[in-house]
Amino acid sequence: MYELTVLLEENGKEPLYEQIYRHIREEIRQGKIKAGEKLPSTRLLAGHLGVSRSTTQLAYDQLIAEGYLSAVPCKGYFAAGVEGLCEICSEKKNSFDKQTEQERCRYDFSTRGIDADGFPSGRWKKLAREVLSEVDTELFTHGDSQGEQGLREAIRDYVYSARGVNCRSEQILIGAGSEYLLMLLNQIIGEKSVIAMENPTYMQAYRVFCGLGHQVIPISMDEQGIDISELKQSNASLAYVMPAHQFPTGKIMPLGRRLELIAWAAAEEGRYIIEDDYDSEFRYRGRPIPSLQGYDRNGRVIYLGTFSRSIAPGIRVSLLVLPEKLLERYRQFCGFYATTVSRIDQEILARFIQEGYYERHLNRMKGVYRAKHDLLLELLKPFQTRFLIRGENAGIHVLLEERSCEGSDHPLPEDGGNEIRTDRQSVLLREAWLVSQAERGGVRVYGTSRYYVDGQAKTATILLGFARMRAEEIREAVKLLAEAWGITS
Amino acid sequence: MYELTVLLEENGKEPLYEQIYRHIREEIRQGKIKAGEKLPSTRLLAGHLGVSRSTTQLAYDQLIAEGYLSAVPCKGYFAAGVEGLCEICSEKKNSFDKQTEQERCRYDFSTRGIDADGFPSGRWKKLAREVLSEVDTELFTHGDSQGEQGLREAIRDYVYSARGVNCRSEQILIGAGSEYLLMLLNQIIGEKSVIAMENPTYMQAYRVFCGLGHQVIPISMDEQGIDISELKQSNASLAYVMPAHQFPTGKIMPLGRRLELIAWAAAEEGRYIIEDDYDSEFRYRGRPIPSLQGYDRNGRVIYLGTFSRSIAPGIRVSLLVLPEKLLERYRQFCGFYATTVSRIDQEILARFIQEGYYERHLNRMKGVYRAKHDLLLELLKPFQTRFLIRGENAGIHVLLEERSCEGSDHPLPEDGGNEIRTDRQSVLLREAWLVSQAERGGVRVYGTSRYYVDGQAKTATILLGFARMRAEEIREAVKLLAEAWGITS
Repeated sequence: MYELTVLLEENGKEPLYEQIYRHIREEIRQGKIKAGEKLPSTRLLAGHLGVSRSTTQLAYDQLIAEGYLSAVPCKGYFAAGVEGLCEICSEKKNSFDKQTEQERCRYDFSTRGIDADGFPSGRWKKLAREVLSEVDTELFTHGDSQGEQGLREAIRDYVYSARGVNCRSEQILIGAGSEYLLMLLNQIIGEKSVIAMENPTYMQAYRVFCGLGHQVIPISMDEQGIDISELKQSNASLAYVMPAHQFPTGKIMPLGRRLELIAWAAAEEGRYIIEDDYDSEFRYRGRPIPSLQGYDRNGRVIYLGTFSRSIAPGIRVSLLVLPEKLLERYRQFCGFYATTVSRIDQEILARFIQEGYYERHLNRMKGVYRAKHDLLLELLKPFQTRFLIRGENAGIHVLLEERSCEGSDHPLPEDGGNEIRTDRQSVLLREAWLVSQAERGGVRVYGTSRYYVDGQAKTATILLGFARMRAEEIREAVKLLAEAWGITS
Repeated sequence: MYELTVLLEENGKEPLYEQIYRHIREEIRQGKIKAGEKLPSTRLLAGHLGVSRSTTQLAYDQLIAEGYLSAVPCKGYFAAGVEGLCEICSEKKNSFDKQTEQERCRYDFSTRGIDADGFPSGRWKKLAREVLSEVDTELFTHGDSQGEQGLREAIRDYVYSARGVNCRSEQILIGAGSEYLLMLLNQIIGEKSVIAMENPTYMQAYRVFCGLGHQVIPISMDEQGIDISELKQSNASLAYVMPAHQFPTGKIMPLGRRLELIAWAAAEEGRYIIEDDYDSEFRYRGRPIPSLQGYDRNGRVIYLGTFSRSIAPGIRVSLLVLPEKLLERYRQFCGFYATTVSRIDQEILARFIQEGYYERHLNRMKGVYRAKHDLLLELLKPFQTRFLIRGENAGIHVLLEERSCEGSDHPLPEDGGNEIRTDRQSVLLREAWLVSQAERGGVRVYGTSRYYVDGQAKTATILLGFARMRAEEIREAVKLLAEAWGITS
C-alpha cells in the first residue's frame, strides 16, 4: 500500500481536505502513485495525518468524482490509470471553482436549467404588476406557515388533474425549494432514518440526507427502476424515488413496480416513500402514469414537486404533500416555522395556475422540448454504432451508454460495438476520456458516474441535457461531438 | 403521587400527546388531581401508557405553558392550585387552536407583527414594478446560492454603517427567514452541539435548536444580560444571544458584558456566539452599541439579521454573516443548497437599500414607534404602584413586572406594593390571573413564562407589544387593562 505523507498547513487558506485532495492528485499525476496501487483507508489516513475522518473522506470523494481514484467495495481505494487521466489533468480543474471550468466550452449539454426563451416572463410580469396594484399591505404581513390557502387549493387541483395526486389542501406545504422542504421533512420525521435511494440518484437530495445525518443506502436499479428485493433486504424505513422520470437514468417506473413499492411501504409501520416528481411534465411516448401518491391507500407516500423546473429556476417554490400522520407531526413539531416564500410570490403563482397560464405554458414547453428532443435523437443516429440511446421517452436529457469491449487498456478502443462490460475502473476512465475529448472539441458533456453514490457507473454513460440549447446549437454541438469522438455518419 | 391512567385512542383523530394533555387538564379542572399533588415523571408516565417519552413531555410542556402544572427542578411536576386556575379553565382554550383564541379580544398587545401603516408599500411596489420592467429573463435563472452579489454588497454596507458589523460580502448568506438560516447553520456546524441560550429567550430559535437535536442549556440573566459565570460552567460550545435588545426582557447588553462574552468564545477552540440582532433598529435612549460582531477579533461571532421585522413580515429575507472558518465549512458542505429567495425579491430589496429608502424607512419608523412608546409609558404611570416598567429603552414592546408580596393564596392580593418575591408556583398563577382578567376585559396580553425554557418566570411579568396598535387603540386598551386589574389613576 502506498504510504501517504501530506504536509498540512493547519491554518492555511485552503481547507485541510483540499490540501489532501491536491496532494494525492499531484502524486497520481506525476506517477508517484501508480495505476492500480492501493491507497490507505480513510480511517488510516486520518489517523496518520491527525485529521478527522470526514476530512479524508471528503478528499477521497473528490478524487473519485474526478476519476483519480476508484472505490472497490470491500476492497478499498485504488489509483486510477495515469495514462487515461493525464489528458484530463491538464484540462480539468478542481470542481470547486466551477465558474472558470464552464467558460471554456462553446456548448454545454448541462442538465441544469431550462429553455430560457420558453419562460413566459411577459405573462409572469403582468401578473406580478396586477398583484402589486391590487393588493393592500395585507400581503406584507405574516402569512400562513404552510403557504397561502389560495395557492394550496390551486396546487391541489393541479396535482390532482395532472398527476393524480389525491390530497386535501391542508396536506400541502409550500417551501422555497425542494432542498428546504427536505430539511423540513427531516424535522417532521424527527429521527435519524435509514434512507434507501436509487443508485444513481439526484445528488442534491443525497447530500441533504447525508448532511442531516441520515444513513443512506444506495439500491441498484434494473430496467424498471429500484430493485425491490434489494430494498426489502435493506433496513431502510424511507425510500426516495423518482418514478415519473428517474434522474439521471431517465427511466419511467412501470405500474407493476410502483405497486410493489407501495406494498413494501405498507408492509411495516413507519415506512414512507418520498416521491420526487421533479420532472414529470415532459413525456414523449406512452400515456403518463399517475403519481405513486395517487395509488397509495395507506398514507405512505410523501409527494415532492417543484415549480423551479417547470416554470423557472428563479421561481423558488416547491411543495410537499404530507400523509395525514406526518401532517399531524408537522403541526405538532414544525408548525412554528414561518413560510419561506413571500406572499406576493405565492399570489402570483396562484393566479398563474388558476387562470390557466401554467397549463398553457406546460403544453407549449412540451412542444418546444419535443422538437429539440426529436432533433437531437435524429442527429445522434450515427452514434448508435458505439452508443445505446437511453432515457429517450421523457424529460429534458438523454443518455448515451457506450457499448463497451473487453480488456483494453486504451480508454476508447477503436473496435467498439460488442456489449461485454469492462471492469469498473475502466468504465471510469472511458467516461473521463469521453468527457475530456468532448471538452477539447468545445462541448461540455457529463458522465453519469458523478450520480452514483459509490462514484462509479456500471457502463460508461454520457448525459446530454438539451433544455437550454437552441436547435442550431444542438446541431453544431452534436457535429463537434462526433468529431471529438471520431464518429462518422 | 397521583396515579394517571389515560384511555388513549391509538388511531384517534387527536395526537396522543393532546389526548394526554386534555385528560390531565380535565383531572385538574375537576379537582381529581389536587393543587400541589405530584405527578409521575414523563418517563414513568410514558412507560405506564406505552407511549414515547417525547409524547408525555409535550403534554406536560403544554400543561406548564397553560399554567396547569409547574415544574420544580430536581423535584418533579406538581399540579397548580385549582382556585386560581378555574377562572382560566372556562376562558382559556388549548393554545393549539390559536385563531379562535384571538378573536375574542378587541385589543391585542401581541409582540408579533409591525406597524402595518408604516410599511412603505407604495415605494416597495414602485421598485418591484421597476425591477420587473427593466430586467430580462436572466433574473428567472439560477442565482448565486449565497444570494446575489449586489444585495450582499448593499447589506454589507448597511450592517457596517448602521451596526458596526465588519465583513466582506462573501461572508454573507441570504436566506428566506431566520429559522431557515438557523437550519442551514446547523448543517454548516455539522455536529450536535451544546447551545447556551439566555433564559427567557426567543422560543422559535429554541424550538429550532431542539428540533435539530442539539442540547440547549438555559442560562440565567442578570441585569446586564446572560450570566457569564454560569455560561462558563456549562459545557456549551455555542451561545445564542440577543445583545441589542434581548427578547423578551428588552435588556440591552452593556459593552463590558459583550467583551466578557467575546472573551468566553475566544477562550476555547470551536466556540461561537450567534448574535441575533433581530430588533436593533429601534432605540429610544442612549447611544446604540455596535454589534458584538464588530468587537470580535477572533472570528467567533455569527451575526444573524432580518428584514422581516424592520421592513415587513411578508418580506422573507434574513441574513447570516459567517466567520471565515465557518464560511469554509459552508462552501465545503453546504454550497450546493440553492438560494431560498427569488432573485426578483433580492433585486427589489437591494435597490430599496441602495437608493436610501431603507434608511429613511427606519428613521421614520423610529419616530412612529417612539411616539407610541412614549404614549404607552405615559398611560402606564398609574400602573407603577403595582408594576415595575422594564425594557423601556428600545424595541417595540415593554414589560410590566408585578411587585409581588408574600404567601397569599389569592393570585392577586390587594395589598400589592412590596417587592418580596413569592414562590414560583404562585408566580405562574399570578401571571395567568393577570392574562385572564385582561382577556375578560377585552385585552389580550402575554405572560413571560412562556419564554422560559423551564416554563416559569421568576416574577409575574406581562409583555405589551405596541407596534401593531394605533395611538387611540393604545389609549383604550390601557384603560380597559386598568379596569380589569383594578388599577386606579
